[in-house]
Amino acid sequence: MTCEKVDTFKYVVEPFDDDFTGRLSWNVLGKHVLACAERHAGARGFDRLTLDGHQRFLWVLSRMVFEMDEWPRLGDSYTISTWVRRCYRYFTDRYFDIANDEGHVIGRVFTIWAMINETTRKPQPLNELFGHTFDPYLETERPCDMQPLSRIRVNTETPVSIRPTYYSDIDQNNHVNSVRYIELILDTFPKELFSSHQVKHLEIAYNTESYCGDSLSFYTQSAGPDDYFVVIKKNVGHPEQPLGETICHSAVTFAPISKKTKQ
Amino acid sequence: MTCEKVDTFKYVVEPFDDDFTGRLSWNVLGKHVLACAERHAGARGFDRLTLDGHQRFLWVLSRMVFEMDEWPRLGDSYTISTWVRRCYRYFTDRYFDIANDEGHVIGRVFTIWAMINETTRKPQPLNELFGHTFDPYLETERPCDMQPLSRIRVNTETPVSIRPTYYSDIDQNNHVNSVRYIELILDTFPKELFSSHQVKHLEIAYNTESYCGDSLSFYTQSAGPDDYFVVIKKNVGHPEQPLGETICHSAVTFAPISKKTKQ
Repeated sequence: MTCEKVDTFKYVVEPFDDDFTGRLSWNVLGKHVLACAERHAGARGFDRLTLDGHQRFLWVLSRMVFEMDEWPRLGDSYTISTWVRRCYRYFTDRYFDIANDEGHVIGRVFTIWAMINETTRKPQPLNELFGHTFDPYLETERPCDMQPLSRIRVNTETPVSIRPTYYSDIDQNNHVNSVRYIELILDTFPKELFSSHQVKHLEIAYNTESYCGDSLSFYTQSAGPDDYFVVIKKNVGHPEQPLGETICHSAVTFAPISKKTKQ
Repeated sequence: MTCEKVDTFKYVVEPFDDDFTGRLSWNVLGKHVLACAERHAGARGFDRLTLDGHQRFLWVLSRMVFEMDEWPRLGDSYTISTWVRRCYRYFTDRYFDIANDEGHVIGRVFTIWAMINETTRKPQPLNELFGHTFDPYLETERPCDMQPLSRIRVNTETPVSIRPTYYSDIDQNNHVNSVRYIELILDTFPKELFSSHQVKHLEIAYNTESYCGDSLSFYTQSAGPDDYFVVIKKNVGHPEQPLGETICHSAVTFAPISKKTKQ
């Protein structure tokens, strides 16, 4: 088991890891971020857990914030470094730096995780679960300058789109993958916007899970010239719960593509 | 430039490269197959092409057939080997072997590619384009035993689902990515089927492209106990072309999960 606090993983934007503009796709970046978290936790004995031979516990995201100054493009190398800053009763704060091949930080990610019981889907106090603490691994010195979190409100009851969920949306936790929501949120914007703009800030607060077969409704609201709020609800109009349940709140800020990124 | 005929690329099923059952996801496998083709062609001077400084040409898939005996699972290493067997006026036949970490072939892929003009979207005679032939690179000896192609017919006009296309469906060729169709086809099946079964054979014949904003309709038909046909049409009901246009024909065969794969 490693005694380092920070792990760094190296990647290259391979063919088809990019979006139509040649920038690293959200799907690939998001999954790499999740995979780095899983590897870093696993190397320190904080894997997904099975207790008493049957009770399984899974890490799930409570919040995820991306701040991207530049996007890696097809063929570019980049690294993702990750560390845990805080671990409290039910939650742990994990940070990531994304650096280009010159070692210059081009993006930052802040995440809050909980561990849920696979059956009850309820969060569990973390120290009691593992019987050992994350304390030796906490990295409290490394800077992690992120903007304060947004207050996200959407004042509309008219969805811009409604999408069912399917086999390919579901991950090993048996719920819609947390990165998949990011793709679905960005799909509420016109493709043309991504020709001239890139996402500079994206944050998502996960309230509840959704499962295969759930129907997702998307509600959007402008929050500034390049700022948008997007809320996803599930199963709106269901007879037992006509207002549905909020899955996540999200805020997205676009910025014109920088000359440095445009090629 | 290499003078080898076959290139082999090594992969590992990383966290979140898998589906909910822990098997390598179609999205990741398909994109790796496309990336191997692009790298193999590029290393031999058959990249995407720009002529006279402005006419661009892109490789597009005409047909793609997967035969999978076993699926790599989370953490497994596997390799993809690829070579070109034939190159004729408008098309080229490319094969792939997928091998497990013991070097045992667990899957085979057969593809037919054309090169289209980016503006007209019409296929171009290949030899005239490149001014040199693929002949020195043709691998005609290596076995590539694939089943004969299916005759795919769907006799229904009632779609099982209709899905718009969005930003995240589109790749650098500015059309819906060819692997994305595979995900969409498999999403017409209930998730539960993938708990007990795996895809053994999947073939897809691409007729025309679809673009961001097109509406995709899915038509399915049983073709045997574990065999299904799926046809995707675009913009059905459009006033100028009410019957829509067929994007692709597909055949899918499931098999019960082998003990070797189930873990």
